[in-house]
Amino acid sequence: MPVGLGPLPTLHPVAGFRLGIACAGIKRAGRKDVVVMQAPAGASIAGVFTTNAFCAAPVTLCKQHLGNAPRYLLVNTGNANAGTGQPGMQAALRTCDELARLTQVESGQVLPFSTGVIGELLPADKIIAALPQALENLAEDNWAAAAEGIMTTDTQPKGASRQITLGGQSITITGISKGAGMIRPNMATMLGYVATDAKVAQPVLQHMLRQAADLSFNRITIDGDTSTNDSCMLIATGQVSMTEIADLDSSEYAQLAEAVNAVMLELAQAIVRDGEGATKFVTVQVNGGANRDECLDVAYAVAHSPLIKTALFASDPNWGRILAAVGYAGVPQLDVEKIDVYLDEVCITRNGGRAAEYTEEQGARVMAQAEITIRIELGRGDISETIWTTDLSHEYVRINAEYRT
Amino acid sequence: MPVGLGPLPTLHPVAGFRLGIACAGIKRAGRKDVVVMQAPAGASIAGVFTTNAFCAAPVTLCKQHLGNAPRYLLVNTGNANAGTGQPGMQAALRTCDELARLTQVESGQVLPFSTGVIGELLPADKIIAALPQALENLAEDNWAAAAEGIMTTDTQPKGASRQITLGGQSITITGISKGAGMIRPNMATMLGYVATDAKVAQPVLQHMLRQAADLSFNRITIDGDTSTNDSCMLIATGQVSMTEIADLDSSEYAQLAEAVNAVMLELAQAIVRDGEGATKFVTVQVNGGANRDECLDVAYAVAHSPLIKTALFASDPNWGRILAAVGYAGVPQLDVEKIDVYLDEVCITRNGGRAAEYTEEQGARVMAQAEITIRIELGRGDISETIWTTDLSHEYVRINAEYRT
Repeated sequence: MPVGLGPLPTLHPVAGFRLGIACAGIKRAGRKDVVVMQAPAGASIAGVFTTNAFCAAPVTLCKQHLGNAPRYLLVNTGNANAGTGQPGMQAALRTCDELARLTQVESGQVLPFSTGVIGELLPADKIIAALPQALENLAEDNWAAAAEGIMTTDTQPKGASRQITLGGQSITITGISKGAGMIRPNMATMLGYVATDAKVAQPVLQHMLRQAADLSFNRITIDGDTSTNDSCMLIATGQVSMTEIADLDSSEYAQLAEAVNAVMLELAQAIVRDGEGATKFVTVQVNGGANRDECLDVAYAVAHSPLIKTALFASDPNWGRILAAVGYAGVPQLDVEKIDVYLDEVCITRNGGRAAEYTEEQGARVMAQAEITIRIELGRGDISETIWTTDLSHEYVRINAEYRT
Repeated sequence: MPVGLGPLPTLHPVAGFRLGIACAGIKRAGRKDVVVMQAPAGASIAGVFTTNAFCAAPVTLCKQHLGNAPRYLLVNTGNANAGTGQPGMQAALRTCDELARLTQVESGQVLPFSTGVIGELLPADKIIAALPQALENLAEDNWAAAAEGIMTTDTQPKGASRQITLGGQSITITGISKGAGMIRPNMATMLGYVATDAKVAQPVLQHMLRQAADLSFNRITIDGDTSTNDSCMLIATGQVSMTEIADLDSSEYAQLAEAVNAVMLELAQAIVRDGEGATKFVTVQVNGGANRDECLDVAYAVAHSPLIKTALFASDPNWGRILAAVGYAGVPQLDVEKIDVYLDEVCITRNGGRAAEYTEEQGARVMAQAEITIRIELGRGDISETIWTTDLSHEYVRINAEYRT
């Protein structure tokens, strides 16, 4: 059961951006597993992708096609088309070719995305057969159905939406994402799509996406496994009558970026809340670092420790495991006598030892909550970093032991 | 149930090295939880310790005392005396003082070791009260009882023993170790004790230990959590009539080192075989690397991936997860088209894609075994590294969720 993840919020349509859904029967008949998204001519599209060297065939193609003024995004679930070599590349290209033929664009203007089992050849024929169905129901108000259409082991669809006013014009930013395992995004998550009707120059949009991803999808981890297929796209349809945002220092950029950041953070956190087997939503905040890298090293050491994750699952304030993880995070010349650790507002460790006033009851009370913040004060400088993660439960083991059965 | 770990083998006594066991009632009454080891005057003692910045009070003391011609090792289980600040240091010192008083040595000649829960103050009074009992039963043939006395969540005691002939003299090397969680040793495991009756100069013994630890305890991982208390000691009592080994290039050094390596590898692998919740003993071998670091990065990425570990638990040849882990291990300019992956002798990936002749049945057959080798060929050079690990089972989650209850 997802932690603190309510029903899908209202997802405002984005002028000029249409979504269509189909059931291709890739893994199971009758399941929504193909989504086509259409951007208008002249839209700006930005993308960030996995840094996994074994990136999937569609990721390779997306990177190649991103410069071709793309018009269509084609997503399938049930098969990741990763580790499939040249046959996988050919299969992905065939789906692009066919969607391009049906829509009268160039094949290079189609961006393909796949998610699901790694190492099995993409069933291109099934996807191609489903394309007319997806194109028939292309509509601006199809975000909720598309959020369902990109799910794999997610238990709930994930979406977020904001509306802001920019220079007197109402601007919409809407996005969807999916998790829910092999999650330690490195550049993006697998998968996120955010669109706005604002008018933004492509290089500026790419900058906005990169920054937003660094503060959202690149700050979550479920199991430390960086996927082969992580992709996050930001589309600006430019349908609102406004001057194109082309200046990173403009107030328009700042306002839009803030809203995009908020949407992407909500989408990223939704992935954590619905992480495989998650029973806790955990914020790991590291303050007082000398630099960003050491803050993140400490935060990820804590977030990836199976011992801390199982203690979180058990609601056991076993704070010694937190100290141990801080200690092995590799921070150079770490002075353990400067370190304080808090569970929410309860100080459990002060100056590297158990806080004098701390009682197990206080720790147990915080650990019993569904949402917990672990705060670590390093006392080395003034840099902070925050990431979000989950616990490690029996359910995580069950889901991933049975994934292919 | 441990994987392929039989009953304790015969542990040959080491001349001059005596072990005594007591029940101090630290965590449970009647459990062997204190072990005293006595080295003769003139013995050489070498040690390697955790690199965790939050190293426990006893680790700090051991490092300080190692240069004082130590005579006694004092081990307790049930409490790690880590994250306990100055009170923890005082408690450890008190146990050293008392053992020194009883045995008429200097307090600085006692090496203390603790293992168990982190963050609780060491019950020094209980340990001190148990010292006379341990001293009374000091004996050279007490290795098996001592192996039991240092256990925590281990399900079986662990020991290994070899006898070699060196310059016409019979030499014995005997050791014991314990695991079984928070295991990703970095310098040593928590805890290993190996003694030999050979005569070895201390700096040479330290070199021998460092090399042996790098090939054994520093090549295993269960959960990636580097402990605060890892310590591995090598004691040479010098009771055999022989010329002291003082030359790293001598054939005597090479022969003794080979036997020490074998004992330590057996002890390290025993820890993996008895890893928390382990149902599989997994060898991860990385060949064809350009250097040692990248081989180890790949090996540990595979060994720490919760997705691979759950697939191992499920006996599911989900080789795509192996490719994904190789891909995110951070090897610079990795050419995925050169990578082959084997499960034992079954080639599952060739040139970065599924091997043409591979069938799921072949993969499933290997994965059903209790002992599995994952072999990864990087095709970048001629360096190889091997590490050992376990799967991730429901039992791991249960043990660590319930550890303090």
